[in-house]
Amino acid sequence: MKWALIGASTIASQHMISAIRAQEQNDIIALLSSDSARGESYAAEHSIDRAFTDLDALLAEPSVEAVYISTTNEKHFPQAMKAIAAGKHVICEKPLAMSVADACEMVAAADAAQVVFATNHHLRNAGSHLKIREMIEQGELGDVQAIRVGHAVYLPPNLQGWRIDNPDAGGGVIPDIVVHDADTVRFHLQEDPEEVVAIERSESLGKGVEDSVMSVWRMPSGVLVQTHEGFTVQHAGTSFEVHGSEGSVFARNVMTQRPTGEITLRRGDTEVSVPFSTHNLYERSVRKFVEAVNGQGAPAASGIDGVKSLAVATAVKTSATTGRSVTVDYGVL
Amino acid sequence: MKWALIGASTIASQHMISAIRAQEQNDIIALLSSDSARGESYAAEHSIDRAFTDLDALLAEPSVEAVYISTTNEKHFPQAMKAIAAGKHVICEKPLAMSVADACEMVAAADAAQVVFATNHHLRNAGSHLKIREMIEQGELGDVQAIRVGHAVYLPPNLQGWRIDNPDAGGGVIPDIVVHDADTVRFHLQEDPEEVVAIERSESLGKGVEDSVMSVWRMPSGVLVQTHEGFTVQHAGTSFEVHGSEGSVFARNVMTQRPTGEITLRRGDTEVSVPFSTHNLYERSVRKFVEAVNGQGAPAASGIDGVKSLAVATAVKTSATTGRSVTVDYGVL
Repeated sequence: MKWALIGASTIASQHMISAIRAQEQNDIIALLSSDSARGESYAAEHSIDRAFTDLDALLAEPSVEAVYISTTNEKHFPQAMKAIAAGKHVICEKPLAMSVADACEMVAAADAAQVVFATNHHLRNAGSHLKIREMIEQGELGDVQAIRVGHAVYLPPNLQGWRIDNPDAGGGVIPDIVVHDADTVRFHLQEDPEEVVAIERSESLGKGVEDSVMSVWRMPSGVLVQTHEGFTVQHAGTSFEVHGSEGSVFARNVMTQRPTGEITLRRGDTEVSVPFSTHNLYERSVRKFVEAVNGQGAPAASGIDGVKSLAVATAVKTSATTGRSVTVDYGVL
Repeated sequence: MKWALIGASTIASQHMISAIRAQEQNDIIALLSSDSARGESYAAEHSIDRAFTDLDALLAEPSVEAVYISTTNEKHFPQAMKAIAAGKHVICEKPLAMSVADACEMVAAADAAQVVFATNHHLRNAGSHLKIREMIEQGELGDVQAIRVGHAVYLPPNLQGWRIDNPDAGGGVIPDIVVHDADTVRFHLQEDPEEVVAIERSESLGKGVEDSVMSVWRMPSGVLVQTHEGFTVQHAGTSFEVHGSEGSVFARNVMTQRPTGEITLRRGDTEVSVPFSTHNLYERSVRKFVEAVNGQGAPAASGIDGVKSLAVATAVKTSATTGRSVTVDYGVL
């Protein structure tokens, strides 16, 4: 399958270009960047044949079958809608859009056009999370009672652009990280958060957007979830804990783009280390997407999953700014 | 100093009787229990000379100089007010009262009567927490950005009485455990939570009261705090984390009555174990109280500290039941 990249992004160069090329018979032949100089140099660096500055021209290429969208958040909706209208399969970065309504429209358009539309939530592709999900599914933790997510990190200097100062581009830690935590919790519990409360903060990096947030979510089953997301925390690492009637899982450094971390299962006073696969997260995401295009199965995270993670993040933002408990609005799918 | 116990309680027999007797020249000579048979047997078991069923009669004993109140929560206010009026020094279990207003009245009465009035918050007496406080104070963590408190435990069967089914006696995990977390956070940050949001749950043990709660607090400095308290969680242990610009502290099993646990300081990828004193928590609490009675220093946790921890717990309960962010009301002190 021939791909185009929409956006000459860091995440594409660090993860997705190699993940796409790791799939047999898949290559990237075109790139869109609004900055033609940047586009040319990025294309040359990554051996991509053609750099476009005009999306319509790129989408007019019949050889392009799939696009990966990793522009700033406000561009996802118009770009995805055009790609879908052109009959391309789409894997889109999170958050899918600036509003749940727009994200729903993207999903509906892809359904109508019969193209595969996926969200690039990497964490549910991690061996660590696949293992934790398996433990939950097989009842090793008993009834799950609570989840705690520690996802407060230090935003690398090369990413300290629109994420920390541009709300119109979807900046802020809530659109950037809460969506991942929402998707991961949904993946583990196979249910959608119902009610959230949150307090946010702009501590140091955030100018006009929040750089830290803590929230609590109630799941339909009653399970309580607490999360902490941040752009400013240097030494915490990341953590993911699931507490159940038969055991507690403590996972460290598993809320990352790389197949790192450790999982410990604790029962009473006994702790055991749990092994897991260390495959590349993005390669699995792309592989599932390619398989879906070939009629085999579904993407790891669908468009609907992207709608739902955005809906949770939107509710967290609403609660943080209104001081009220918010019922998550998943839109009309 | 001669003491009386008000309440033939588990915590007195497990911790406080020995802690009082560990102080030179301190002994317990009287006990109040509303159940005369229980009072007689408890007094005999613990070598306490006299068991009373009538508080006025006990307080009329001039040899009794101090009382330790560990009855159910709704009795703390009337019993403490009588003890203060009788000129006794008082160390009272948490929560001090059923309302912040009552707790303020207790503090004001003790001030007027010039007796020492203390709250039995044990955690700020732990070597682990004293060490963490010292690290914060000495700037080893830099600017504190966030605190996470994991205090969801399994309520021992012998305590599964009024705590899980009697709101009128102050049952529920919020009055029982959130007060400790509030006191501990206040101790570490030397400031008082300003705003809280919370979601509570009655999962299994709680009948008419919550048995689990998660909350987020905003401190005046901007520091965010998240807590998880529970009566139903078997395998989580307890945890206390402080994240700062220069380091993160991960403490495990330090939210307990015993001098247990481990502290790890993490800077970048380097982790070091931090040693701390393992003295008895309750002996230190009583020692500081006795010293205060002797005119040397203040109790570890004053009456005002008890008012403030109750105020935070009250705000958490209000937020959990109204679905709104609540500004903590510390009453009129």
